Amino acid sequence: MPPSAPPTARLLIACPDARGIVATVAGFVAEHRGNLLESEQHTDTEHGEFFMRAEFEVAGCDLTRGNFADVWGPVAERLGMNWRVYWSEDVKRVAIMVSKAAHCLHDLIWRWEAGELNVEIAAVISNHDTLRRAAEHAGLPFHHCPIEPGRKTLQEQQVRAILNDARCDFVVLARYMQILSPEFLAGYEQRVINIHHSFLPAFAGGDPYRQAYDRGVKIIGATSHYVTEVLDAGPIIAQEVVDVSHRHTVADLRRKGRDLERMVLARAVRAHVEDRILASNGKTVVFS
Amino acid sequence: MPPSAPPTARLLIACPDARGIVATVAGFVAEHRGNLLESEQHTDTEHGEFFMRAEFEVAGCDLTRGNFADVWGPVAERLGMNWRVYWSEDVKRVAIMVSKAAHCLHDLIWRWEAGELNVEIAAVISNHDTLRRAAEHAGLPFHHCPIEPGRKTLQEQQVRAILNDARCDFVVLARYMQILSPEFLAGYEQRVINIHHSFLPAFAGGDPYRQAYDRGVKIIGATSHYVTEVLDAGPIIAQEVVDVSHRHTVADLRRKGRDLERMVLARAVRAHVEDRILASNGKTVVFS
Amino acid sequence: MPPSAPPTARLLIACPDARGIVATVAGFVAEHRGNLLESEQHTDTEHGEFFMRAEFEVAGCDLTRGNFADVWGPVAERLGMNWRVYWSEDVKRVAIMVSKAAHCLHDLIWRWEAGELNVEIAAVISNHDTLRRAAEHAGLPFHHCPIEPGRKTLQEQQVRAILNDARCDFVVLARYMQILSPEFLAGYEQRVINIHHSFLPAFAGGDPYRQAYDRGVKIIGATSHYVTEVLDAGPIIAQEVVDVSHRHTVADLRRKGRDLERMVLARAVRAHVEDRILASNGKTVVFS
Amino acid sequence: MPPSAPPTARLLIACPDARGIVATVAGFVAEHRGNLLESEQHTDTEHGEFFMRAEFEVAGCDLTRGNFADVWGPVAERLGMNWRVYWSEDVKRVAIMVSKAAHCLHDLIWRWEAGELNVEIAAVISNHDTLRRAAEHAGLPFHHCPIEPGRKTLQEQQVRAILNDARCDFVVLARYMQILSPEFLAGYEQRVINIHHSFLPAFAGGDPYRQAYDRGVKIIGATSHYVTEVLDAGPIIAQEVVDVSHRHTVADLRRKGRDLERMVLARAVRAHVEDRILASNGKTVVFS
Repeated sequence: MPPSAPPTARLLIACPDARGIVATVAGFVAEHRGNLLESEQHTDTEHGEFFMRAEFEVAGCDLTRGNFADVWGPVAERLGMNWRVYWSEDVKRVAIMVSKAAHCLHDLIWRWEAGELNVEIAAVISNHDTLRRAAEHAGLPFHHCPIEPGRKTLQEQQVRAILNDARCDFVVLARYMQILSPEFLAGYEQRVINIHHSFLPAFAGGDPYRQAYDRGVKIIGATSHYVTEVLDAGPIIAQEVVDVSHRHTVADLRRKGRDLERMVLARAVRAHVEDRILASNGKTVVFS
Repeated sequence: MPPSAPPTARLLIACPDARGIVATVAGFVAEHRGNLLESEQHTDTEHGEFFMRAEFEVAGCDLTRGNFADVWGPVAERLGMNWRVYWSEDVKRVAIMVSKAAHCLHDLIWRWEAGELNVEIAAVISNHDTLRRAAEHAGLPFHHCPIEPGRKTLQEQQVRAILNDARCDFVVLARYMQILSPEFLAGYEQRVINIHHSFLPAFAGGDPYRQAYDRGVKIIGATSHYVTEVLDAGPIIAQEVVDVSHRHTVADLRRKGRDLERMVLARAVRAHVEDRILASNGKTVVFS
Repeated sequence: MPPSAPPTARLLIACPDARGIVATVAGFVAEHRGNLLESEQHTDTEHGEFFMRAEFEVAGCDLTRGNFADVWGPVAERLGMNWRVYWSEDVKRVAIMVSKAAHCLHDLIWRWEAGELNVEIAAVISNHDTLRRAAEHAGLPFHHCPIEPGRKTLQEQQVRAILNDARCDFVVLARYMQILSPEFLAGYEQRVINIHHSFLPAFAGGDPYRQAYDRGVKIIGATSHYVTEVLDAGPIIAQEVVDVSHRHTVADLRRKGRDLERMVLARAVRAHVEDRILASNGKTVVFS
Repeated sequence: MPPSAPPTARLLIACPDARGIVATVAGFVAEHRGNLLESEQHTDTEHGEFFMRAEFEVAGCDLTRGNFADVWGPVAERLGMNWRVYWSEDVKRVAIMVSKAAHCLHDLIWRWEAGELNVEIAAVISNHDTLRRAAEHAGLPFHHCPIEPGRKTLQEQQVRAILNDARCDFVVLARYMQILSPEFLAGYEQRVINIHHSFLPAFAGGDPYRQAYDRGVKIIGATSHYVTEVLDAGPIIAQEVVDVSHRHTVADLRRKGRDLERMVLARAVRAHVEDRILASNGKTVVFS
């Protein structure tokens, strides 16, 4: 989504399945002279839930940030909808959290510079000072928040303060090697994206490439997911895999895995930035 | 699509891009009390064309085979639409044309028996007698239409007669190794599906695995497409690929390719049977 | 491996890593005027183990079934080798065990008829009578061995008797839905190949497509492995995967999975038949 | 290949197929007390050619840069071998040529910094000044060699002079958008690696993503190959592909293609650096 694209609004909806919802939403947009660019929906027949994403051009439309809730709210209430609207002009602000591994941070920066990710990188935060130069070379504010023994809570408070000060909309854990506490995550539901270096649910936890090597799998993977309180168990956004064989050492798996991690994390961040993800029942709907 | 699924209608639309089409279609379905199950659309911004597929349950809806054209026609005309409607209860009748290679025929029969393909196989037609037993074992009528030197036109007339007698809706060339004449194809636009054993447009024409071997490619593919008058140049429906290396002989490529061909052809036939394909400007829109 | 290929011997070796093994083996073959067609080796540096496969033409060579152990034995003993030699003219005899699902059996039969698998299918054994016609149509002996409540041991004894009578070299579980007892497996180490319909180690146990659906993974897989006493934990031979999304129901996963299962099982059986697999430390070396 | 790995020699051989070559090579290495780490061979039965790569540890071996040709030469001559030997301690010097697109350069630099590519980047050369900062930030010498109208020969002479001065062993065209003349390429056979942004041989020449879009393919690819005098027709080293659909614009294909290009180019450069590639008859053997 290049910055020069025309401004749009993206309406995300989750509600009990019923007849006529597409007609209602599309009719509403048309009635207010919005040009519907994309409309995708999904029905989870097992749970009787309906999900929809509608993106329409703002130009020429009489729906605005100011009046949208007032105009749309009564319709949504009648249909029992959970809904949110995003305006493409509100560029999301992201904090990237890292430890020592550089590849995911480098990749996100490169994609951002190339115009692939329509975000503002408001902060790079790390428990190590290793990647300061990489961040600052790209003109990004770098925050070193080390974890002193027994004082992890304090560090998380520092990080939360940085997120607040920088008005971050979401957080990307780009190989941040610390587990975040439930207290930290409170209020950040579906706003923290992690990359796990395995094909989840296989090899959750530590050193997944070693685990994969020891099990002798013939394919390795990487998984991006929203972070929840349960380690590596949040709703999966994207996964990718690559073939391996007995010839590959653990070091080879790590090397091959770095490429997977970069690809998968970028795909997940991009989908999040474009407001394409709805999560429910521990799973995601990712509209294409 | 198991036979026990509830009956649906599938409306396929192509028209100049304009505002409000989704609202119009979804509103029309809702107004007539149809339950919209799937709705997908695509705008080709280069050509200013809009494509849509809407599938809705027939039960409880007051739209029928009998009145659909009368009720929907005026709306469609106003918006300059090309449209067709398909009723899932009208199980499509297919003719499978083969030569000597068995794998694609076997695969289609197996999928049909497994309930993966909601079709009636109305005829198996071949220029050789080799696969008679395979067809007849599955209870399918087999027609041997050999091509005598200089009398290909005659053979094509025989085949056309069989297609007419068996009231075939479409034709699958399951490794049929003869080129069909423009006369044969007339009236069968987007109704003849071929499998070509290469990653088109690379290696069009004869013996593509030999061509691929000689070029030293590291990946081979297979392509299913609608047949047009220009050899191997029709709109592509599906493609798949597999890695190869210097270790693979031409025989290995043929063996690996057979698996690709089976997969790709089945995907294309399934998409056609479910009325998911629109073709325009030499390309396809395949709704998912 | 077409039946017309020249006869070969395949020497498989596992031993402690040491210098000069390739030279010793290749020199031995050359000294006895064998034409080395393929030679591949692998060193597991973690365990200090060396693995090798050497395939050489028998014609013109003075090594035979009769003298091989005598001539090669002393060399192998000196280097502390575990070794086995296979002669391509000894076509392996396989028993295929199935329950009700037809796709893997159909696929193996088709590949066997197409000359892709150089085996003799000595028996098709099932705890149901469902697939009798499929087997018998292909001219294969079908054995119905139902499991009566509380009498599984008896059934396993019947199956073992069939395997013995038919002189089966190995067993393929082509979606056989029963767990084999340790008693049954005794003496069949690395001679029973299973297809599990998940990307192991994820989703071991029952109904893996349902598990995958509930977890919301974006990729599903299938795994072929040698059967050991621990369920779904034997050495992995081959794996394949395919993308899925929120749009796919459990039934869709099963349908897509069937294609994976067919491919993966065929690859594993082919590698086994060509004596390309060595297993050690719960993992496989699969020579290409 | 981390710099800390023990020094090795890599012997690459091409010769007419004959018996006993593996025994001769492995025996030679063993006789001189080299520890054979990897040995892979390939017979091209169509052309009667034999290819081999043997890598052995130098430590403890009495073969050296100084005596290798004298000791090995007579053996090789007797068997009619073309051969070259590489010493891993001789880190290859590479020149990276670019135009304006940054992604491949960034990726190669990042992999080099991460220790994935055991090379010395001796020069970055461009016909534009755009990527000077990227190169210089990494501490790499950047040479701006613009092409003035009608004076391309002059520019190529400048580039050749830089390659000579920097003692470059090979050249990587990392999206260098100029065609190199036969005069430039003379003496650089199999020493210039290009990345072409299509699945060759499909879409050779200019703007392949536009070509792919217009043809409506469902998969796009990227190809790395050695450069020859015929445009986009040199021996293919590596290829990768990714699925696309009607939803993807030309801009989407370019974005997705960038990821492919980075992966494929890196794989090819890595194989070249590790002396794993032999080229013959317009194709490559890439030892794994």
